[in-house]
Amino acid sequence: METFVYLDHNATTEIYPAVKKAILHALDVTGNASSVHGAGRAARKLIEDSRESVAALVATKPENVIFNSGGTESNNMAIRFFGNRIRKNRILASAVEHDSVLKVSPNIELIPVDNDGIVNLKALDEMLALSSSSKGGNKTLVSVMLANNETGVIQPIKEVVSVARHHGALVHCDAVQAAGKVPIDINSLGVDFLSLSAHKIGGPAGVGALVIKEGLTKIIKLSPILYGGGQERGHRAGSENISGIMGFGLAAKHALENLPKIKNLATLRDQVEEKLSIHKDVRIFGAGVSRLANTCNLTMPGVAADRQLIAFDLAGISLSAGSACSSGKVKPSHVLAAMGIVDEVSSTAIRISLGWTTKNQDIDRFIKVWNEIFKRSKSSLKKLEAA
Amino acid sequence: METFVYLDHNATTEIYPAVKKAILHALDVTGNASSVHGAGRAARKLIEDSRESVAALVATKPENVIFNSGGTESNNMAIRFFGNRIRKNRILASAVEHDSVLKVSPNIELIPVDNDGIVNLKALDEMLALSSSSKGGNKTLVSVMLANNETGVIQPIKEVVSVARHHGALVHCDAVQAAGKVPIDINSLGVDFLSLSAHKIGGPAGVGALVIKEGLTKIIKLSPILYGGGQERGHRAGSENISGIMGFGLAAKHALENLPKIKNLATLRDQVEEKLSIHKDVRIFGAGVSRLANTCNLTMPGVAADRQLIAFDLAGISLSAGSACSSGKVKPSHVLAAMGIVDEVSSTAIRISLGWTTKNQDIDRFIKVWNEIFKRSKSSLKKLEAA
Repeated sequence: METFVYLDHNATTEIYPAVKKAILHALDVTGNASSVHGAGRAARKLIEDSRESVAALVATKPENVIFNSGGTESNNMAIRFFGNRIRKNRILASAVEHDSVLKVSPNIELIPVDNDGIVNLKALDEMLALSSSSKGGNKTLVSVMLANNETGVIQPIKEVVSVARHHGALVHCDAVQAAGKVPIDINSLGVDFLSLSAHKIGGPAGVGALVIKEGLTKIIKLSPILYGGGQERGHRAGSENISGIMGFGLAAKHALENLPKIKNLATLRDQVEEKLSIHKDVRIFGAGVSRLANTCNLTMPGVAADRQLIAFDLAGISLSAGSACSSGKVKPSHVLAAMGIVDEVSSTAIRISLGWTTKNQDIDRFIKVWNEIFKRSKSSLKKLEAA
Repeated sequence: METFVYLDHNATTEIYPAVKKAILHALDVTGNASSVHGAGRAARKLIEDSRESVAALVATKPENVIFNSGGTESNNMAIRFFGNRIRKNRILASAVEHDSVLKVSPNIELIPVDNDGIVNLKALDEMLALSSSSKGGNKTLVSVMLANNETGVIQPIKEVVSVARHHGALVHCDAVQAAGKVPIDINSLGVDFLSLSAHKIGGPAGVGALVIKEGLTKIIKLSPILYGGGQERGHRAGSENISGIMGFGLAAKHALENLPKIKNLATLRDQVEEKLSIHKDVRIFGAGVSRLANTCNLTMPGVAADRQLIAFDLAGISLSAGSACSSGKVKPSHVLAAMGIVDEVSSTAIRISLGWTTKNQDIDRFIKVWNEIFKRSKSSLKKLEAA
């Protein structure tokens, strides 16, 4: 059996060993964090300590962090902060957002992106101008992600905020994929909402946070998604996922410390791109613009993505065709489609995403297997043509 | 330091050691359950195995289990299955339901309960008769819990279902507190939705399930709360909390096996009630009706609940005044108020809830400390009166 190579860190990344230990410790703390007794207070302390670490990851104060069940809930919370007024208000989202943004409301208007997947600021400005009359009424929300999960392409969030502010719109930024890979400062970005997920930064799945801009709750009233107890300052009901939150907090600490290491993954990623782009017609999406250091989305000309996935899987290499967050089916990517890539090409694209455990030999092996699959496919294609 | 005594199992119960081990194992499985590669399939298997165990706890098939982030989300999902139509339809909930039912919509109509906290079936019938014209249109939802978290009182769910069906209404049953304490068969109960939470049955916090009646999705269209990926057959988007779900599954297995043991806790609970009810004016709520074996809600005449909680906490005993799922404040219980108990009395009530780790000596110690606190309070009261 070949060595197992995991190159799907954007889907979920390996958990830090220290995080595992912390989770185990937290599971021993019996106590509902809302209980007033000693056991409850011990649980509360774990949560509040973790809130500090998660806040530090995006350079804000702990009280701006609302813990929840993950990135999907964070995005849903932000898009639905309008509550029942969602239909009366406008939501503009870039065409390359994650489904957990795009599918929240049927009324979402798509902001186009260019061929590299960068949001079109002029189009955004024109779209917002249509309702500028309601300026200052916080009636419009613009949602643009910090980095795309499929391509790693980084959006010009500060510019998005600048355009949005000019029209009195609020801004949500899905930073689920960017966190732990690039430094994030919510104040410097200027966004009102920012989404995070623990399992993308070395924490456990099932926990995340919506971070809100300092002072936001003084200006607008947020509508919760879940109602019940008064947890998370009334923004998110439900007994807290104590062990998950503890794991999230420690992962945030490690992720912050590991930022330089993740940045260095670009060296390995660039090796892949250099060695595979020698083949005719291989396309690497977003290669010309600012991207996450760990992500590469490339085509294998003439070989369908699902065939590639199976071949890589048989060779012990785990990777994805775009987003994993669906029903397990390989569909044409809406991200690549928005970038103007025709289905014929996008259907041959796979994504490799590196992480804190990725080694040189993993990359060597990936390149080797990629070449083998490509060669095999070409020869069977030739036989088919000859027949 | 005295031995630590935990009598707050209804708030959160101690995790089974085997569950902790299983969680640890699951944390080692790197892989997004939606990914098609080997790592993803391994994660998927853990989830589907757990789904079988959770289904078995309520005697249904795995495909009827929708995993989510806990009891609060389960209750919210059931109440909001109408989606945006929630305002146009009727929701009737018993006055003793948990806040995660009662606070989901401002339009919820309260079904009264009697002095023991049992739902008034005649009142329910009359309330439903008001909209019987829409019979068969599934326009009304009735929500009644299986067992109350504060008193342990068990509701006549089959009768509730019978009344509801007569008027064409659907029924949701919050079984969060009953699960693992009494046998549950969703088909025998006849309800359409049933809520479960892992941390009430020896699993981790942050994971739960909404169980739906066999075939329900063929009759009605459920509105999800969270939109995005196609997880949980489209009913609940978001990367799955794999380790939490694995812990939930194993906890469900243990809870099912431990039902007789939990039932036997009645012996210990009855000792408490026998020994403390000798004092004049001590009231035990729901004592005359069918109750969970582990729960006792009783007053200490003249002594405010928050004072009791502090005194018990100082003596190393953890317990609650009613529900823990709030902001940590002790408020008059809406459950006891609905049972016709005046604030003056209910404000002196505390809840002890036993669990799988509770021992004889815990109970002896509780009784001893209760008597000490009561005696001390009476003597300081006398001094106050003499002054």
